[in-house]
Order: sequence, then C-alpha cells, then structure tokens
Amino acid sequence: MSLQTQPRLVTLEGGEGAGKSTVLAALRDALLAAGDEVVCTREPGGTPLAEQIRGLLLDTRHEPPAPETELLLMFAARAQHVRETILPALRRGAWVLSDRFTDASYAYQGAARGGDVELIAQLEQRVVGINPGLTLLLDVPVEIGLQRARGRGDADRIESESDDFFERVRAGYRARATAEPERFRVIDASQPAAVVAAQAVAQLHAHRETLR
Amino acid sequence: MSLQTQPRLVTLEGGEGAGKSTVLAALRDALLAAGDEVVCTREPGGTPLAEQIRGLLLDTRHEPPAPETELLLMFAARAQHVRETILPALRRGAWVLSDRFTDASYAYQGAARGGDVELIAQLEQRVVGINPGLTLLLDVPVEIGLQRARGRGDADRIESESDDFFERVRAGYRARATAEPERFRVIDASQPAAVVAAQAVAQLHAHRETLR
Repeated sequence: MSLQTQPRLVTLEGGEGAGKSTVLAALRDALLAAGDEVVCTREPGGTPLAEQIRGLLLDTRHEPPAPETELLLMFAARAQHVRETILPALRRGAWVLSDRFTDASYAYQGAARGGDVELIAQLEQRVVGINPGLTLLLDVPVEIGLQRARGRGDADRIESESDDFFERVRAGYRARATAEPERFRVIDASQPAAVVAAQAVAQLHAHRETLR
Repeated sequence: MSLQTQPRLVTLEGGEGAGKSTVLAALRDALLAAGDEVVCTREPGGTPLAEQIRGLLLDTRHEPPAPETELLLMFAARAQHVRETILPALRRGAWVLSDRFTDASYAYQGAARGGDVELIAQLEQRVVGINPGLTLLLDVPVEIGLQRARGRGDADRIESESDDFFERVRAGYRARATAEPERFRVIDASQPAAVVAAQAVAQLHAHRETLR
C-alpha cells in the first residue's frame, strides 16, 4: 500500500442511523475546546461540485445509476473533495472530520453491491492517495439503525435499499476494521447517544495525544 | 486486451470544429436509407443521468473539476451510457452512432491533460468492456477547428482551453489511429463539409459490407 496516512484526517463510518452527525458535532467541539482548527465535511460531497455529484447519486428523478456508475461518481466526488477541501485544510494544520470516506466505498459499492473491489483499491491508490489517521466505526445492528434512519423521514435512493443490503454494509465495515486495527476504533452505537459520543471523544483525545 | 468489439457500434472522434454533427447526420441517413435501425447518441451523455453528468462537466458555475475528477465523471457517464443505451440497442440489432467514445478520454484526459493513462486503460477494461467496430477520426488542423467552433458562439469550459491543449488532443487522437489501423479511418476534415460527409459514408458502407 502506498497510501499516505494523514494523522489529522479523522473519518466517521457506519450504516444508516448509526448516529454519525451527533458524534461528529461532539468531536468538533472537543477539538475546538482544545484550541485547534477543525474542518467538518462529508462524503459524497464536501465541495460545491462534489455536492452536485451527491445530488445526482441520491436523486430519484432520473434512471438509477448502474453499480459501476455509482462507484465512479463516488470516487469522482472523493477526488475533488481530497484536492479542494481535505488536503488544503491538512496543509494549514487543521483537523478534518469527515462523515464517511473511502471505507464507505468498500462497504457500500464493494461488499454490499458486489462491486469490483480490485477497481476500488486501484482508485484508492491512484486517485485518493491518502488514508485517515483515525477511523471511528459506529457499529449498530441493522434493525436498530434503520428504525432510527427511517424515523427521520423520507428515504433517499440508498436509504431505501433492502435490509440484506445493510447487513452486507455492516459486515463490510467490520471486515475493514478487523483488517486495519491500528486505524479503526469500533464503537457500539446501540448505546445511548451521549455514551457513544463520549467514547468517540475519548478515542480522539487518545489519538491526539499520540501526535504531540 | 479483453475488450469485446461491437461491429455495429460506430464512433466519431475529433477535436472542436471537426464537423462531427454534420457527419453523424449523414451516416444516420445512409443507414436509414438502407432500412437499418439507428440510435444516434453522444458522449458525455446519452442517458438522462449521463446528460446530468455532462452538465456538471461543462458547467462553469461551480469550481472546475480536478483532472482526476473530470476523468472519473467521464467514465461514470460512459458506464451508464454503455449499459442503458448502447448495449440494449446493439442487442436488438440496431446500429449505434456515437459522437465520441473512449478514445476521447485517451485524447482529452490522457494526452492533452496529462492524466493517468494506465488508469484510463483499467477503466476501459473494467467498466466499459466494449470497443467500436469502426471509428472515424475527423482530423483538422487546430486553428481551423477552433475558428469554426468559436464562430458557433459561447465557449463552454472545455472549448475555452488553450491552443496547445487542442494540439495535444489532435496528437493523442492521431496516435490512437496509428495504433489501431484496423478500427480507425482518418478523414481530412479541413475539406468541404459535403466531401467529408461523403468520405465518411463511403467508409461506413465499406464497413457494413464486411458484416454481411
């Protein structure tokens, strides 16, 4: 692997209804309280063009993307996000907290959709080039996560997939965490939101200490 | 190469102002006159979603795409185009005439933009999978082509590139034609439009004869 690890890039991963937004806010507040600069971002998205690509991915008005189209749109948005938002922020010493990153493509387009994992790895190497210093996986049983997500209102195109699909997403994420224990911390996101957030902040503080 | 050649897929390639639209209409009329079914399409585009991607590529309201983003958006649109439009038409025995196809990525994103040609080849193999039976390259000196294209009105993002860029596009296309003489026919598009169209139709007729 020739990916360059970026210690201050912290990514949050997890299926639907894992509580990523709440955790992201807690992490941001913890870094701000320490006097650090923080850029909060998300995938797909994170630049004006990448947000437009996100719109194409989630929109249900045109025909659905073929799996290969979905995969390439995800990486097109990510290529832009890395170059326009993430790397400039890291270069000036800021932390970048991203709601999803490349692991999501392995979980969704790879494990769940049965996509070409070798192609995903090629795109990661050739187009993304960087790896987070810390990835927090908010792991929650599919049934609980979907109940939360669907309680929030209209399902977009991806949220309306089958339960089996989300079981494969979860398994894909857990396999990633097992394969890279140095980078991943798995948090049981079926716990109360305040507990999940506190555990995430503790992991971030521990990671931050290693960078001093 | 494991690309599957599709005899009835005919692609038109060339830089700006090469006269592709006029030639496409002449080819379509020749096939219709012979009683064949013809689907006329274009890249980037050719499906509702792929046309939306085209819009993102040519739009100048958001930040410009990084070269890697542009490349992946082109192949995302192409993946959709192949699956939703080209293959269904070929399967029912229709001809498909496409204004640009994968060669354009080699010329524009590869040769002109200095992109990762190995990645382009990977995407062609893994995501596109098919090759035209006949490719007509309308070759015209850059100066003449740009004069024609700019005479048509507002330049979009790609049309407003430098002359050097278009010299590299032209050289990229000519190198492709030299490398695959079986598939390519190069037509001198500085000739009068009616002569160019007649030569293109003659090449298509000759190709059609080989399929009987």
